[in-house]
Amino acid sequence: MDRHLPSGEDDRDGGLAPLLRAYPDRSGKGIRPALLLATCQAFGGTVREALGAAATIELLHNSFLIHDDLEDESELRRGEPTLHQVHGVPLAVNAGDALAVVALAALHDRSELGARLSQRIMVEILQMARRTTAGQSLELRWRRDNVLDLEPEDYFNLILQKTCCYTTIYPLRIGALVGSRGALDDEALEPISQFGYYLGAAFQIRDDLLNLVGDELEAGKEALGDLREGKRTLMLIHLLRTASTGERAWLSAYLARSIADREPGDAARVLRMMEAHASLEFAETWGLAIAAEARAAFDGAFGDVPPSVHLDFLAGMVPYMLERDR
Amino acid sequence: MDRHLPSGEDDRDGGLAPLLRAYPDRSGKGIRPALLLATCQAFGGTVREALGAAATIELLHNSFLIHDDLEDESELRRGEPTLHQVHGVPLAVNAGDALAVVALAALHDRSELGARLSQRIMVEILQMARRTTAGQSLELRWRRDNVLDLEPEDYFNLILQKTCCYTTIYPLRIGALVGSRGALDDEALEPISQFGYYLGAAFQIRDDLLNLVGDELEAGKEALGDLREGKRTLMLIHLLRTASTGERAWLSAYLARSIADREPGDAARVLRMMEAHASLEFAETWGLAIAAEARAAFDGAFGDVPPSVHLDFLAGMVPYMLERDR
Repeated sequence: MDRHLPSGEDDRDGGLAPLLRAYPDRSGKGIRPALLLATCQAFGGTVREALGAAATIELLHNSFLIHDDLEDESELRRGEPTLHQVHGVPLAVNAGDALAVVALAALHDRSELGARLSQRIMVEILQMARRTTAGQSLELRWRRDNVLDLEPEDYFNLILQKTCCYTTIYPLRIGALVGSRGALDDEALEPISQFGYYLGAAFQIRDDLLNLVGDELEAGKEALGDLREGKRTLMLIHLLRTASTGERAWLSAYLARSIADREPGDAARVLRMMEAHASLEFAETWGLAIAAEARAAFDGAFGDVPPSVHLDFLAGMVPYMLERDR
Repeated sequence: MDRHLPSGEDDRDGGLAPLLRAYPDRSGKGIRPALLLATCQAFGGTVREALGAAATIELLHNSFLIHDDLEDESELRRGEPTLHQVHGVPLAVNAGDALAVVALAALHDRSELGARLSQRIMVEILQMARRTTAGQSLELRWRRDNVLDLEPEDYFNLILQKTCCYTTIYPLRIGALVGSRGALDDEALEPISQFGYYLGAAFQIRDDLLNLVGDELEAGKEALGDLREGKRTLMLIHLLRTASTGERAWLSAYLARSIADREPGDAARVLRMMEAHASLEFAETWGLAIAAEARAAFDGAFGDVPPSVHLDFLAGMVPYMLERDR
């Protein structure tokens, strides 16, 4: 990643270097490149072959974060102010664009994959990015239009597009493609996508729960930021479906206000309602069920792959997704 | 372009289709794909071979416009409200992202170019997009930091990155690459880049002048929008260098205010100052000089190319750039 990011020495680059480096320089988990590199090695490939694609995935993730943060009006990212808070919306939008280009260019730089496989992986990455924007659009509309009548199925359809594609499904697919030197066709990749979906769903459910139970220092985001933003999590969907008429009316009015107009105590009140209605337990139970599906899908995805530490790492990602504290 | 844009039938697409189609559905000049297709044919290629890349360039241009419009706080685009005015900043940022992905995917869809040439063109397109973001960043900083001490050279360095790369230089380069089936190396493309730079500079000078002299209906943008936005054009740079001490103090204070805080009559006052100081004539003279450079560079770029209507079209673009009314 460091090699692909600009050094700041080119004075024709409009001062972009520190903005492009800001999020990658903060400590992230690196789940996406880790999944990609492990899957590549499980299929017999090397880190060296997959490193360009792994850098692409992680840099693209960082570019998504820049735009997501300003679309969601988030204040903190990895423990520091979000980019639009520091530089304003115009420069942050442009920096997100530039970082996405840097990310895609990393795929071709010193690539050892050959033109055909490189092109196939670029097609995968563009499909991935396209679906991520679709999920983000759907979520932004839910909030803008204050959509309240949602079911768990709506949540899972959303996170399939918005989270799972670029967090798990495509990192796994691309790792398998590089590791097999392009030997797998779409049909052969389908069970890997299935496993990726369950793994990503477990990741997102845990992410949403951590936002409610973790503290700001550990998560690096605002405490209760999801409640402040009105994010339609499993917990909020459950609460809206089980709340009393009075509670629901209050929630509806709360969610209809702009983020800036929500009082500091309001988010804590939503959390107390969720606790009273056991909405967190509801989501935790879904998380356990999804993790069980992931374990079941693992054999379909990797049944023909010989044992290795890399395969063990991938299997270990299932419990990790639900146990992680950050 | 129509084939690459979503139809809106996929309900997992988050309602993106009308947002992605909004700008492409409005009438644009199509200069960029026209340059690409003409250059391809001048070098012996077919429209069919270059159509994917031409769609990529024009769709990417439309995605840049979505983000530029919100970064510049523009109100009109092609005679209708800008996308962020209609849908708000979050959905517009996301739609610009999605449209950029659609644009890049068009390069690979039904491509007849083969994997090697496709990959080379993708690298060109990413270089192009990267430089465009650098130019946009530089211009946003000039405005944010209220930079006043600029010379014509600064303007030309800016528009090389921000305008010429994606309007002329890379459309010409990519057209030549497709037309020659990848036979041209970077050194052989350099004279084409040179011609493209002069052609693009003539385009941008005329664009800036049209914003001052054209009416809103014809340009499809707000009348005097550049003055309202404080855009550092050749005319403004000239004015700042020739204004009296009192005028300069007023201009500095005007440009230091936020766009929303500028009075409706202020832009007209800037225009009157420019007229009094002959700043428009200054820019027109630069335009004529740049067009002469473009004519001189044409032979270096296309001297070895046999005569054709396509070559005539490219030669005719030089006077067109300065004579166009929209």
